[in-house]
Formats: sequence, structure tokens, C-alpha cells
Amino acid sequence: MQTTQTTTDTTSQDSAAYAPTDRTVPTRSKERASYDKESVHRILDEAYVCHLGFVRDGAPVVLPTLYGRVGDRLYVHGSTGSRPLRMAGAGQEQADPGLKVCLTVTHVDGLVLARSAFHHSINYRSVVVHGTAYQVTDPEEKRAALDSLVDHVVPGRTADSRPANAKELAATAVLRLDLDEVSAKARTGGPNDEPEDMDLSHWAGVVPLRKGYDALIPSADLAPGIEVPDYLA
Amino acid sequence: MQTTQTTTDTTSQDSAAYAPTDRTVPTRSKERASYDKESVHRILDEAYVCHLGFVRDGAPVVLPTLYGRVGDRLYVHGSTGSRPLRMAGAGQEQADPGLKVCLTVTHVDGLVLARSAFHHSINYRSVVVHGTAYQVTDPEEKRAALDSLVDHVVPGRTADSRPANAKELAATAVLRLDLDEVSAKARTGGPNDEPEDMDLSHWAGVVPLRKGYDALIPSADLAPGIEVPDYLA
Repeated sequence: MQTTQTTTDTTSQDSAAYAPTDRTVPTRSKERASYDKESVHRILDEAYVCHLGFVRDGAPVVLPTLYGRVGDRLYVHGSTGSRPLRMAGAGQEQADPGLKVCLTVTHVDGLVLARSAFHHSINYRSVVVHGTAYQVTDPEEKRAALDSLVDHVVPGRTADSRPANAKELAATAVLRLDLDEVSAKARTGGPNDEPEDMDLSHWAGVVPLRKGYDALIPSADLAPGIEVPDYLA
Repeated sequence: MQTTQTTTDTTSQDSAAYAPTDRTVPTRSKERASYDKESVHRILDEAYVCHLGFVRDGAPVVLPTLYGRVGDRLYVHGSTGSRPLRMAGAGQEQADPGLKVCLTVTHVDGLVLARSAFHHSINYRSVVVHGTAYQVTDPEEKRAALDSLVDHVVPGRTADSRPANAKELAATAVLRLDLDEVSAKARTGGPNDEPEDMDLSHWAGVVPLRKGYDALIPSADLAPGIEVPDYLA
């Protein structure tokens, strides 16, 4: 497509995708990988938790946690006493060695039932981010990061909740992770059975997983007269 | 409860729970952690993918992958060419240094909307397993492990699919991870707002996430006359 688009320059082409690296090119099923920002952001924005990996005493640790996205930057937060937050150091970026992390987000979309046990699989979409996370020390960036975390749970919710006060801000540490070394991976479609298995009598196909919401559960102590906001209806 | 149960000996009590360690006792929200096997197994059995963390060149890597459980043992699999499988070495356990891993499974059950931005949260259930994964070399254990992976996707499916042949078994590597250093963690219930925020006019409560299945999608090339099996109905 690019060859016929005379208005496309290399700058805009570069900004639409993350550059593949040794770590983000899979050793297998390369055709499932993609690097365009739109795909990556869509997968990130649709999930609620990521799995954050870091190394502690030479061993891996993987913890589920909330996150927020602002452009090409992700934020995770935690108590100032929590392990990964403490490990990431505090101080300025120049002096802060940061914390090597791998942040992964996965959607399971369907169960793939093949005629052969071997070809059973899962339809999924995932994003894997490699990088170094740094503590956010700038107060303005920290507040925007925390807003992005709340708005990630429910878009628009920041504007309809009591903002964090000084004590809460002080108790919360925020880590910043730039989206730079990133890839998306997805499997879609039905089973890939072997040609010689096509006549077997086993049912084959996909069991799609449905995601949705159940009826809201208002807090037991919710004051009378508080209506459900439009963004939850 | 144990004090009134004279038939309970320490053996059965021990076998009903995993022993907490430094790594499995959280630094915060200790009341959310549990170690009883029933809770751990239920969370593991209900999810489809885990997030497997390992260390590569000094940096963490977190990948989503299928898994199976047989008693107090988990199995993950992959191509013999995939990175974590190659890194775990082959050969006997005595010579195999294994691969340090952290395997995490998370269910997101609800979005917790508090009156204050600070107290927004997620209701979740998670299991974190720390340990060393070893390649499975015993052919019988390997076959049983692969069965557990397929039956984890759809219970009973192994019996209704063409078993792996020698070529497929040779192409597949399986890692074994003993459930030993394990904890479950869960958050349930509504928001924990500050007393001074209770009169604010923001809606507060929980948005429960619904999980289910959509209509089956049979393979386009499914032979006519193959009915949907009972275990999918």
C-alpha cells in the first residue's frame, strides 16, 4: 500500500508501528505477531489487568496488577511498600537504575477443539512489553498516571470520583514503562487439523468465550437518590 | 474448627494446605492470601491460560500459555524449539538444572468503583506458583501431562480426540512444575471508602464481570452428521 501513497513519509510510517527486536520476534508462529500501534493499543485498552514480571533474588516473579496507558507509555501503581515498587528505586531517572520488567496482557477469546489432541489450542490476543520501569517523581505526571489507571477501569470515572489527596498520593508509588519494545500476538479461526484426520468422527470447531457484565451491585451504604451514572448504563 | 475435630491429625491437616514461605506471604493485604489446596486448585482449574515468567539474559519474560494440573503438579508444553522449553534443558532431573519460573493465574471478577479515585480496585482471584520447572522425559508422564492439558481446555476431551502420535510427541516438550510454594489471593466485596467520603454524591459499587460461552462455531469442513458432543452441550 505504501508504494502507491505518495503522501506517506517515513516519519508517519515509523510512528504507526513499534520496531521489532530480537525479543519481540517470536521463534514460532511468526505470522501471528504484529507491531502496529493500533493493534497493540486496542489489546491493552480492552483488558483490566496485566501480568507484571520482574526478577527478585535471581528468580522471576509474576504479579497481576492494574495499569493505565497514556499514549506510548504504561503506568502501574502500588503501595510505596510493595516489592516491585520498592525495587524500582525512587529518585531521578538519571540516578534510578529502574526495574527490568516484562508486562503481558492476554485475552482468551475461544477454545479451539481439533480432531487431534495435538492441535487443540486457544484463540487469544496478547501484548508483551519488554523494558525498564522507572518511578514517576514528577507530581503532574504522577497525577495523570493515576487518572489513567482509574479511567482504564471505567473510562470517564476520574471526573466522577474524589481526586487523590496529598496523603494518598504520598502512599502511592507509580512506575512508568515506555512502549518501545512491544509486540502483539493473536490466534484466530478454527483448528488446523492434519489432512489425514479430516474424516475422523470427532467434533471440531471453536467454543467462543463470551465476556460481558452482570447487573451492577450498588454499595450497601450508598446514599439514597444516587443514580447510576450514564457511563455505567 | 480443628480443635473440636478429634479425628483430624496433623498429617491430614498439613496435606490440605501449602506451607507459606517468604515469597508467598504478601507484604500487604495479608488477609487476602490463602494456602489451602482446595482454593488453589479451584482457581487453577477454572482458568484457561497462565502467565509463565522466567529469566532470560537477566531480564524477565512473561508469556501466556496453556497448562494442565495433575494433583499437586502443573504441566506446560510447547514446541521443542520454543525458548522456555529449550532453556529448561532436557535429560534427567539429576543433571537438569531446571528453569526457575513463576506461574500466575488470575480471574478478574469485578470492577470496584469507590467514591474516591484512590480506592478504585478490582475483585479478583489469583494463584502464584514459585518453583523450578523440569522437562518431562518419562514417556508415560509426558502422555498423561498432555492429556491434562487437553482436558484442562475441555474436561473429557482427551477421550474424544485422536491421541498424539510418535512424531507429535517428539515435537512437543513438556515442563513439570510441582505445586509446593504456592498461594492464592482474592479480593471480594464492595469499595472500602473513607468514612469522610460516604456522603459524596458519586455512585459506588461493583460492576461484576460475566463470563460465559457463545454459540459453538463448527469447523467449516466438519463432516455432515457429526453431532455436538454432550460435554459441549
